Amino acid sequence: MLSIQAALDTLPRTPELLSTEVCSLDVSHNRILAEPIIAPENSPPFPKSLMDGFAVAADTLRMPPGADGFVTLNVVATLLAGQIPAVTLNPGQAIRIMTGAVVPEGAAAVVPIEQTRFDETQPALVSVQPQQLQPGLNILAEGANVTAGAVLLDRGVALHPGRIAALAEFGIAQVPLHRRPQVAVLPTGDEVVHYTQDPPPGHIRNSSQPMLAAQTLAAGAVPHLLHPVRDQPQLLADSIRKGLQSDVLLLTGGVSMGTHDFVPRELENAGVAKVFHGVQMKPGKPLWFGQWSTQNHTCYVFGLPGNPVSSLVCFELFVRPLLCRLQGLPDPPRHTARLTSPFSVRGNRPVCQPARLFLQNGVLHATPLRWTVSADLNAITSADGMVLLDPEQPRADDTQIADAWYWYR
Amino acid sequence: MLSIQAALDTLPRTPELLSTEVCSLDVSHNRILAEPIIAPENSPPFPKSLMDGFAVAADTLRMPPGADGFVTLNVVATLLAGQIPAVTLNPGQAIRIMTGAVVPEGAAAVVPIEQTRFDETQPALVSVQPQQLQPGLNILAEGANVTAGAVLLDRGVALHPGRIAALAEFGIAQVPLHRRPQVAVLPTGDEVVHYTQDPPPGHIRNSSQPMLAAQTLAAGAVPHLLHPVRDQPQLLADSIRKGLQSDVLLLTGGVSMGTHDFVPRELENAGVAKVFHGVQMKPGKPLWFGQWSTQNHTCYVFGLPGNPVSSLVCFELFVRPLLCRLQGLPDPPRHTARLTSPFSVRGNRPVCQPARLFLQNGVLHATPLRWTVSADLNAITSADGMVLLDPEQPRADDTQIADAWYWYR
Repeated sequence: MLSIQAALDTLPRTPELLSTEVCSLDVSHNRILAEPIIAPENSPPFPKSLMDGFAVAADTLRMPPGADGFVTLNVVATLLAGQIPAVTLNPGQAIRIMTGAVVPEGAAAVVPIEQTRFDETQPALVSVQPQQLQPGLNILAEGANVTAGAVLLDRGVALHPGRIAALAEFGIAQVPLHRRPQVAVLPTGDEVVHYTQDPPPGHIRNSSQPMLAAQTLAAGAVPHLLHPVRDQPQLLADSIRKGLQSDVLLLTGGVSMGTHDFVPRELENAGVAKVFHGVQMKPGKPLWFGQWSTQNHTCYVFGLPGNPVSSLVCFELFVRPLLCRLQGLPDPPRHTARLTSPFSVRGNRPVCQPARLFLQNGVLHATPLRWTVSADLNAITSADGMVLLDPEQPRADDTQIADAWYWYR
Repeated sequence: MLSIQAALDTLPRTPELLSTEVCSLDVSHNRILAEPIIAPENSPPFPKSLMDGFAVAADTLRMPPGADGFVTLNVVATLLAGQIPAVTLNPGQAIRIMTGAVVPEGAAAVVPIEQTRFDETQPALVSVQPQQLQPGLNILAEGANVTAGAVLLDRGVALHPGRIAALAEFGIAQVPLHRRPQVAVLPTGDEVVHYTQDPPPGHIRNSSQPMLAAQTLAAGAVPHLLHPVRDQPQLLADSIRKGLQSDVLLLTGGVSMGTHDFVPRELENAGVAKVFHGVQMKPGKPLWFGQWSTQNHTCYVFGLPGNPVSSLVCFELFVRPLLCRLQGLPDPPRHTARLTSPFSVRGNRPVCQPARLFLQNGVLHATPLRWTVSADLNAITSADGMVLLDPEQPRADDTQIADAWYWYR
C-alpha cells in the first residue's frame, strides 16, 4: 500500500492543460489566465496631473523668487479632468488643473493649490515658490505605469479583483481563460439515496455528493451530479461511462473489500487504468485512482471512500492538487501549524485529522478535532482544515508542530 | 479628520441583519445561515456496522473459548448495506454483515472478517475470539453522532462543504439564509468612460467598477453596476437615487477638494446623512461615509476615492466589515505579519501598503510592494493583502511587525 507521499507522486505533475476559452472580463473573477496579457498601450496614456493645482511653465523653476520666495504667474486657462489642453504653456504662464487632467505641453510641474497663493476673486494670477519645485513634480508621465508591449499579467494567474482592474484599465474586455475543469460526482451504494429523498428503513441519505459539489466549486471547477447508483455492476458501468466524459470523475463508496464493492472492477472493465488502490492513511485508506484516455480526452478517476469525512479529506489531499494542475496553477500550499494542545493518534497509519486552523499573533495554530466515525458531524462542521499526525512519532508537548492544509481554498 | 480606528468605530456595530430567504441547499455554498438548524432525527438513524465482518449474539462474549481462543458460531444470514434485518440473533448465532448495514437485534458486537476464521466454502460457520470482544465493538449506535433536537448548526455560520454535508445527511434540502447584500457601484468623473469604451483623448477607462464588482462578489454580495456618470449635479443626483435602492452604494471619484467634486454635496442633497468625510490614512484620505434611511430601508453609502488602489483599500478596510455585519458574520480578521525586509513610509498619515502575504514555517510574512501612483499596476496585480505602516514609528530591523489584512477573503 502506498504512503501518502508516494500516492501524491503518482498524480500527473504537468498534465495537459485544459483548453482555452475566451470570456468577458465581467465574468472572469477567480478564473485562470491561459495566455500572458501584453499591455496594448501606455499607462497612463497621457501625462496626468496627480493634484488639484497649477501646471507651471518650465521657466518657472529657474525664476528668481522675490523676498518671500514666491513668483507670480499669469493663469491662462483651467483644465478639468477629461478636457484636452487647447493651449501650450509659455514662459511666465500657469494653467489651473485638476487631478487626472492631461498636463499641457510646456508644463514642467504641477503645484498643489495649497502650496500656492491664489485668490479666487483674482483668478488670472497665482504665486508659487520656484525653490519647492522639481521637473515632473506631481505629473505622472505617459507610460510611467506600464509601457505598451510589456507583460501585464502572466499566464496561470488567477484573476482577482486587482488584476481585473489592471485589465479593465487597458480595455481588455475579452480574456483567454482555461476552461473550468468538469467534475462528475457519482455516489454508489445500495444503502444510499439522494439527499432529497426519504430513505427507506436501513438506508441513509447520501451527504457526500452535495459536499463534493461544493468542494468542486470552491476549487474553481464545475460539478456534474450523477444520480446515486446501486451496487449493481451493469448500472455502475452505465454511470461510469457517463462520468468518464468529464475531466475528473469522483465516485464515492464501493472501493473497500466488501463483497459488494464493485467499483474497482467496473472501473477497470470500463478501461480506466488503475494507478493505485489503497493509501497508508486514515481516513482514506481504500482510495482508488486511475486514468482513462482516448485520443482526444483524458479523465482522471478517483474512487473515494463512502464515509463523508474520508471523501472530504481525499478530495482536499489528492483531487484539489490535480484540479489546480489542470489549470496551470501551483498546488494548494502545505503549511506548518502549532497544535494548541498535545494531541496523539493511535493505529499504524498517518492520520489526516480535521482541525480548526487560525492565525494568532502571526503564527498558524491548529486545534485538532476529535474525529471518530461517531463524531463525524462535529468534525466536518467545525473544521476548516486538517493536520497530518503520525502515530509512530509521539511528540513532546512543546514541539507540537504538524503539516497542515486549509480546506476549501 | 478621523483616524482609521475612529472611522471604523463609526460603522454600525450591529446593523439590522438582512432579511431571510429560503434557498435550495444545492445553491447554498458559502451562504450564511439566518436561523439555527435543529437535527430533525437521530444520526445515524439506526445502529450501523462500521466493518465488513460478523455480527455476533450477546452470549458470544461470555462463551468459554477453546484451547486456541476461538468459539464457533452458526452463520444464519448475510446483511448488506441497505438491507433490513429479517432475523434476530439468538445465542450461538452470527450474521455476516457489511459496512453500513443495520446491525440486527440481539447483536452485541461486529467482528471484522480479518479477525475471524472463515472459509467461504463453508459459509454456515465462523470462529471468533470472545476475549477480543467488548459490547458495542464496531457498532455505531443510533443517535451516537447527533440526537434529534440537538443544534446541528448555529445561525451566522457560512455553509462550507462540510456543513452542507451535515445538512444533507438530515435531508435538509431548503435552508434559511441571509439575503446577499446588494451593492451598487457608481463611477463618477468627466474623464472616465466605461472600460469597454474607447476613451476620447484626455479620458481614461474606469477600472474601479469591475474591480469593485469582483471585490463585492468575493465578499459574498451581489454587485449592481450603474453606468459611469459625469461630474454634473443633476446626472449625479439621478444616479445616486437609483443606487440608494441597494443595501450599500459605492461611488468612486468626486470626493476630493477639486472644483468639480460634487459627490459629497449631491449625497447630502439626496438625504444621505454624512457620518464622516476624510480619514487620516494613505491612500484613502478623501473617503466619505454616510447613511440613508427610510421607514423600511437603509442604504450605507461610501464615496470612495477615484484612484483604483485607493478604492480597493477602502473597500477592504471599511466596506467589507460592513458587508460581514449585515449578514451576522464577524469582521474579517486583522492579523499580525512579519515584514520580509525593513520598509518605511513617509508622510504624516498611516499607510495601508499593498503587500504579498504568505505563511512560511507557520509564520505570517508580508512583503510590502512599492506602491506609488506611478506603480499602481504592479501593486494591485501582485498584492493579496496590505499592511498598516506608521510613518511616525520607524522600527528596528528585527522587529518589523505590522497589522495585516488579507484581501478578497
